[in-house]
Amino acid sequence: MLPPLPTRILLGPGPSAVHPRVLRALATPLVGHLDPAFLELMEETKRLLRATFRTTNALTLPISATGSAGMEACLVNLLEPGDTAIIGVNGVFGTRMVDIVERCGATAVKLEAPWGHVIEPDAVAQALRAAPDARLVAVVHAETSTGAWQPLEAIGRLVRERGALFVVDAVTSLGGCPLQVDDWLIDACYSGTQKCLSCPPGLAPLTFGARAVDALHRRRSRVQSWYLDLTMIEKYWGDERVYHHTAPISMNYALLEALRLVDEEGLEARWARHERHHRALKAGLAAMGLELASQEGHQLWTLNAVRIPDGVDDAAVRAALLREFDLEIGGGLGPMKGRVWRIGLMGESSTEANVLLVLSALERVLPRCGYPTRPGTGVEAAARALAASPARG
Amino acid sequence: MLPPLPTRILLGPGPSAVHPRVLRALATPLVGHLDPAFLELMEETKRLLRATFRTTNALTLPISATGSAGMEACLVNLLEPGDTAIIGVNGVFGTRMVDIVERCGATAVKLEAPWGHVIEPDAVAQALRAAPDARLVAVVHAETSTGAWQPLEAIGRLVRERGALFVVDAVTSLGGCPLQVDDWLIDACYSGTQKCLSCPPGLAPLTFGARAVDALHRRRSRVQSWYLDLTMIEKYWGDERVYHHTAPISMNYALLEALRLVDEEGLEARWARHERHHRALKAGLAAMGLELASQEGHQLWTLNAVRIPDGVDDAAVRAALLREFDLEIGGGLGPMKGRVWRIGLMGESSTEANVLLVLSALERVLPRCGYPTRPGTGVEAAARALAASPARG
Repeated sequence: MLPPLPTRILLGPGPSAVHPRVLRALATPLVGHLDPAFLELMEETKRLLRATFRTTNALTLPISATGSAGMEACLVNLLEPGDTAIIGVNGVFGTRMVDIVERCGATAVKLEAPWGHVIEPDAVAQALRAAPDARLVAVVHAETSTGAWQPLEAIGRLVRERGALFVVDAVTSLGGCPLQVDDWLIDACYSGTQKCLSCPPGLAPLTFGARAVDALHRRRSRVQSWYLDLTMIEKYWGDERVYHHTAPISMNYALLEALRLVDEEGLEARWARHERHHRALKAGLAAMGLELASQEGHQLWTLNAVRIPDGVDDAAVRAALLREFDLEIGGGLGPMKGRVWRIGLMGESSTEANVLLVLSALERVLPRCGYPTRPGTGVEAAARALAASPARG
Repeated sequence: MLPPLPTRILLGPGPSAVHPRVLRALATPLVGHLDPAFLELMEETKRLLRATFRTTNALTLPISATGSAGMEACLVNLLEPGDTAIIGVNGVFGTRMVDIVERCGATAVKLEAPWGHVIEPDAVAQALRAAPDARLVAVVHAETSTGAWQPLEAIGRLVRERGALFVVDAVTSLGGCPLQVDDWLIDACYSGTQKCLSCPPGLAPLTFGARAVDALHRRRSRVQSWYLDLTMIEKYWGDERVYHHTAPISMNYALLEALRLVDEEGLEARWARHERHHRALKAGLAAMGLELASQEGHQLWTLNAVRIPDGVDDAAVRAALLREFDLEIGGGLGPMKGRVWRIGLMGESSTEANVLLVLSALERVLPRCGYPTRPGTGVEAAARALAASPARG
């Protein structure tokens, strides 16, 4: 048997809590990956993924690796050596895209904004004028490292006008806050399973629209990654069923069950739930004198980057939350290390109970770590916000 | 809930049957991927993987994707543009290696043998003389497409003498038949979880020895895949714990439990079990007039490629086995499509019961599909072979 594992409340940047039905799906005995029963399950997965991405794209499937491989899959399939890609860089994940673009032998034009801020459409327009041959523009919808929520619609229109492809990282938004792949003119989009879908990590949902598929089919060179080569993967997940790799059966069981839970809740009700709990958390934090690090008006519902007050020991607080409450929140990444805590309210983890718990736990721990706060302050404000905005349904 | 799935007996080329303890491990609620409890589990996984690979290599870990990504990880980390790689090509997986080598901008020297045959050490010696600057020689230990079992020791010595790196695909051998990474001078080796380890597909155990790590650290260019870049992954799985991607938590739970089962059984007892059941199956098939397609003396214990008798309809037989017995066996790949069945006896699927079942099921189905055989012929011969070689322990 596995060594005894603690039972954690997962309010970090992912994984989020996994529903017992998804855990049960994981434990289902396996069929073969070419079994007619598995092929049916693949079809249902594609159908529900399309609904969740709000797209009719035929090429919509889970890549057999984690969200980061979804990022790599989008870029290696769309870029060729010598291409130019305009990348929004305002956190860890835009920075990672630049890294991958360069590994493709392409040139990355960095569109920088301060961490926590969003990329402005004007900056995109300017970059497109300066690099008219850019093959794609990529931005991060939900920057997990900063909590910034990138508006997409205006950028989508600009990119389409210029004939480039619009690539969006939706790792921390899919299933948690509004995302409309078709309406917003997104050509390629990827996500992870362990955030707002509340499935364990291990798969990367991905969708390619007709323009992206066309670019893929017109490549002059082969895709540099065999494993992520969509010209082959589309035949495995498509009607041809040509063997490529062995799909991770159990993870696909889990993803399908997680997508069914999304479908049962309803995407809009799910978004509303995430909004409600984010607002309550923010109200509670504000009452305690704590603020979010991301730009006002562009704060994610799914991931809250909380500025650590001066003099407070980041690691000591997180260790106490873990030790005393079995409660995981995340630390900062890169330049935000030691400067923010990242509180995720994603998927099954986005509940009233968790909002009240994390606030009351912080109220217990912070005074011992150099930040005075009166017990009940944050919880009371959050409770008021919750009462003012009743849950749907 | 998931749609109702059939309960299959998995005797194809993988996935193999998964032990209930591994299924239970999959269903364990998740901790975070940087949780101290998960870090302990990573250490234990590395320890047991080393034991299973028979190595002391520090850099031994599961890549967060399926076995094919293990192949790509080995090649993209060890090759740079302009390098030469000598690749043994005698089936689908050697062919795939050539494909990946070329995507790395390297030159593949193909060392071909007929499908079903093994690569001779003399051919390797000759290729190394012809390409003295070759960076690596790669062969497939257990060719899943043909059932051929490649001897490695002599090749390992030749490659070491020439100063090249020896890369081995152990996808269908690790945990099922003898593999000695250190003793056989293997520099880099990868596998999959869904074969003889009897874990679901989704991870690729990989080990790099000191010479491979040295080559990795001396690279002139960056690894072309960000996701598979071992210079970063070694820091995530090493003492630094530097965030790279989010490890697939549940799959890692499953792998650890599967490795514990290997450890409890004992690697040599496990090999002996695979040998015993292969021999019984082969005896039974022979009594029915059926023969293996792989070279005599080099037939895998884990995967049996059975020549389809003339006039017998491949697909009809497999469909009947699936429909009437819930029994999965594999079809042929590439030039062996329609010419062989692939019967896997891997991990938990390698049992007396399964040997007797697959033979008796074939005895029922084949006469209807144009191949006359007297019921009991194969089963009787297999039972005799089993009686003559009692199970250990």
